Amino acid sequence: MSDETNLTLHTDFYEINMMATYFEKNMENRHAVFEVFFRNLPFGNGYAVYAGLEHIIKYINELNFTDEDIDYLREVTDYPESFLEYLRNFKFKGDIRSALEGDLVFNNEPILQVEGTLAECQLVETAILNMINYQTLIATKASRIRVAVGDDPLMEFGSRRAQEVSAALWGTRAAVIGGFDSTSNVLAGKMFGIPISGTHAHSMVEAFGNDYDAFKAYASTHHDCVFLVDTYDTLRSGVPSAIKVADEMGDKINFQGVRIDSGDMAYMSKRVRELLDQAGYPDAKIYASNDLDENTIASLKMQHAKIDIWGVGTKVITAFDQPALGAVYKMVSCEDENGQMIDTIKISSNAEKVSTPGKKQVWRITDKEDGKSEGDYVTLHDEDPRKEDSIFMFHPQYTYINKTVSNFDARPLLQDIFVGGEQVYKQPTLKEIQAYAKSALASLWPEYKRELNPEDYPVDLSQKCWDNKKKIIEKVHSYVQKIKYGSEKN
Amino acid sequence: MSDETNLTLHTDFYEINMMATYFEKNMENRHAVFEVFFRNLPFGNGYAVYAGLEHIIKYINELNFTDEDIDYLREVTDYPESFLEYLRNFKFKGDIRSALEGDLVFNNEPILQVEGTLAECQLVETAILNMINYQTLIATKASRIRVAVGDDPLMEFGSRRAQEVSAALWGTRAAVIGGFDSTSNVLAGKMFGIPISGTHAHSMVEAFGNDYDAFKAYASTHHDCVFLVDTYDTLRSGVPSAIKVADEMGDKINFQGVRIDSGDMAYMSKRVRELLDQAGYPDAKIYASNDLDENTIASLKMQHAKIDIWGVGTKVITAFDQPALGAVYKMVSCEDENGQMIDTIKISSNAEKVSTPGKKQVWRITDKEDGKSEGDYVTLHDEDPRKEDSIFMFHPQYTYINKTVSNFDARPLLQDIFVGGEQVYKQPTLKEIQAYAKSALASLWPEYKRELNPEDYPVDLSQKCWDNKKKIIEKVHSYVQKIKYGSEKN
Repeated sequence: MSDETNLTLHTDFYEINMMATYFEKNMENRHAVFEVFFRNLPFGNGYAVYAGLEHIIKYINELNFTDEDIDYLREVTDYPESFLEYLRNFKFKGDIRSALEGDLVFNNEPILQVEGTLAECQLVETAILNMINYQTLIATKASRIRVAVGDDPLMEFGSRRAQEVSAALWGTRAAVIGGFDSTSNVLAGKMFGIPISGTHAHSMVEAFGNDYDAFKAYASTHHDCVFLVDTYDTLRSGVPSAIKVADEMGDKINFQGVRIDSGDMAYMSKRVRELLDQAGYPDAKIYASNDLDENTIASLKMQHAKIDIWGVGTKVITAFDQPALGAVYKMVSCEDENGQMIDTIKISSNAEKVSTPGKKQVWRITDKEDGKSEGDYVTLHDEDPRKEDSIFMFHPQYTYINKTVSNFDARPLLQDIFVGGEQVYKQPTLKEIQAYAKSALASLWPEYKRELNPEDYPVDLSQKCWDNKKKIIEKVHSYVQKIKYGSEKN
Repeated sequence: MSDETNLTLHTDFYEINMMATYFEKNMENRHAVFEVFFRNLPFGNGYAVYAGLEHIIKYINELNFTDEDIDYLREVTDYPESFLEYLRNFKFKGDIRSALEGDLVFNNEPILQVEGTLAECQLVETAILNMINYQTLIATKASRIRVAVGDDPLMEFGSRRAQEVSAALWGTRAAVIGGFDSTSNVLAGKMFGIPISGTHAHSMVEAFGNDYDAFKAYASTHHDCVFLVDTYDTLRSGVPSAIKVADEMGDKINFQGVRIDSGDMAYMSKRVRELLDQAGYPDAKIYASNDLDENTIASLKMQHAKIDIWGVGTKVITAFDQPALGAVYKMVSCEDENGQMIDTIKISSNAEKVSTPGKKQVWRITDKEDGKSEGDYVTLHDEDPRKEDSIFMFHPQYTYINKTVSNFDARPLLQDIFVGGEQVYKQPTLKEIQAYAKSALASLWPEYKRELNPEDYPVDLSQKCWDNKKKIIEKVHSYVQKIKYGSEKN
């Protein structure tokens, strides 16, 4: 059921180097909170579809340095034996709160939170980002493609162009969360219960030397038949052969249709539709797959191409037009030497890159009347807008953009996944996650959902959260001011 | 040592569907030859660096349908038990010939060849393409970045942005083949013997609340020290604190330098250099990492940025500007019902997309005098240009572009990796592969190596190969011509 064995060392070397320092300075058990967020939505989209949690749960449950891992670290580092021993006995005992897979997430809000010892929080950074960054990217890309195809069936075909094995497997699962119906990858089908699709390739036609013999052989060995008709000549050979075989086999097969994988898809699909209709197969579907994405699909739809079922590969599985999401993992609070939790910040000369300190929660605010989105409201963790009659939401950089909202519902985005190292959240089925994504999207105003130039969805801070951020920025500024060049610390 | 378990089902569903047809039609053991090639070089580069073979070898050696796999197929398909039984006993017994990792490969030439039964050749298509497409892409991207940095140390830092786990692991190995020196990923270090690099993150500075205490703690727990200086203020706090700690620790640490990860890298690096020099640390290095690629690095070098050591992440591990290589797997020859091998072709209205039939070999032709490249010469497998005094090489599409070459050396690109299902090739170490890539690149004229608008490297066909292609195109055309619309097969 798995494509990986132990991933404990799937981390950046600096994470373990920091753990070593904390261990030797007796700081490894200091309490800390880290949060994952990204600064920009991918593809110019108005929202992102969250995915990656399933793999993270599996990773966290299996965290454990093996003897072999320890031997390797002993060989390539000068870590003291006491630290290696600490690693050998390491268990993740922290808390993880996260958005749920399929939920919509936005820029500049925490989407996953790790709370625990400084050491354990640090270790898991790399793998968590690796999984969220890729899978959220793909679920979001898939959602854009789903919007473009409407309700047509949508198949994921990208394994051969995926960025290695895990991407093919977890990527197609993320595509399903974003709205795809099936995958060509059999192992992904087995691992995740995704319906698998695919019939035959050009090579089968080549092996028989002509379309007719190939289709006939396929039809006499499979009940459901989709024939790939563009190996030699779609209109002169492929489609006529498919029709001939369908005629000959009659009820013995389920002639689902034909697939075209090259040429001018708008023109070809119309001509193929005519041939199928003329031959008495108005219900046979036309499958298309040829480097498609949301833009080519939208264009084909504009041209009234007669395509019923869409196969998308490279462009979804690699998120071709933007192959990385830039989610980061930042410390927001940490225990000091006196046992006090101190909120922390990463300062940058770029205002957007200044992190928001403090352990937080995100609330999805919707109108009580129509259930539609008002925005996300980022608060410190101990605030609860459900107890308020109205809330004052303002833009985290442009604070003069603000609004007061009343008569609202507030739903907390971050849910308990692990508490004290124990998994407390049971994942829904993939089908349920897909349905959840669909319903989450339904609550969003269309202006946030359009593929080109969507309206900015508000992700606003609470007053308390904003006051806290200002206070900490000032604290850091005053620390930096006090330093003299090349000499003093504070 | 592995990130995966059984990958036998990591294949497209249509591969197994075709196997089922072949099995039921008693064709599963017909002899066939398939070849992998790509039509366009990535990134507008003049060459590609081949990678992926190590993973393919592992995959082929482990091919085996488990009982669980068979149960899954029984559940989701209507395959007859006889075919499931055939799969259960399936072993790969074919031959694989391949370019060697680190060798240069070009568009429109076979880079891997699978010869065996129709069934086994078909099964392995998806996984082979998945591994070659990604790893060759990354090795090529890495090679471009290596050209840009010259001889400076070059570290791979991209795990958190990689497209899931296998990409982080196999991608960093491919980056090393292309010329990277080290990785931040500890598991990749363990699996592949890559040197690992990395010291600490911003979070460690945040945990201590100031640069000085953080650096001091790190320095008192590690011998080799690179301090990350841009958490709060690089010039006012980060660098002065690093210097203070270096002063205080003296010989107790190896003060390797400082890392900057944000801001204007050209300006910052010059100011940081001044501070380090003034403080008496002219040998301390400046490490830079901030969304770098070959273009930003070339620009920083033009600006005389004082950067000594480069960390590259997202842009190399995802091949950001072109995240997929389009290598395909095409049948080139197949046994017919009379036991004769028939060369096969995929026809397209686009001349470039017409495949070249026949089992082939690629010869790297170099000048005997200077050892420099003359081009690649694609022949049928039974030709040997080493026996010729001169060869006539011509462009596969524009046949009026041609040349006669004499006084040449010819090296066959495709080498035996598996024979009769047994691995006969022993992989060199990663270091040896990297050195091989470097020497392969040295034999290429600089005109093919420049990053922008390189000269097209000649990939030419032999007369025999071209005559064979013409003959088979004519055969298919005549087959198509004979078909009447909507009625007859040949």
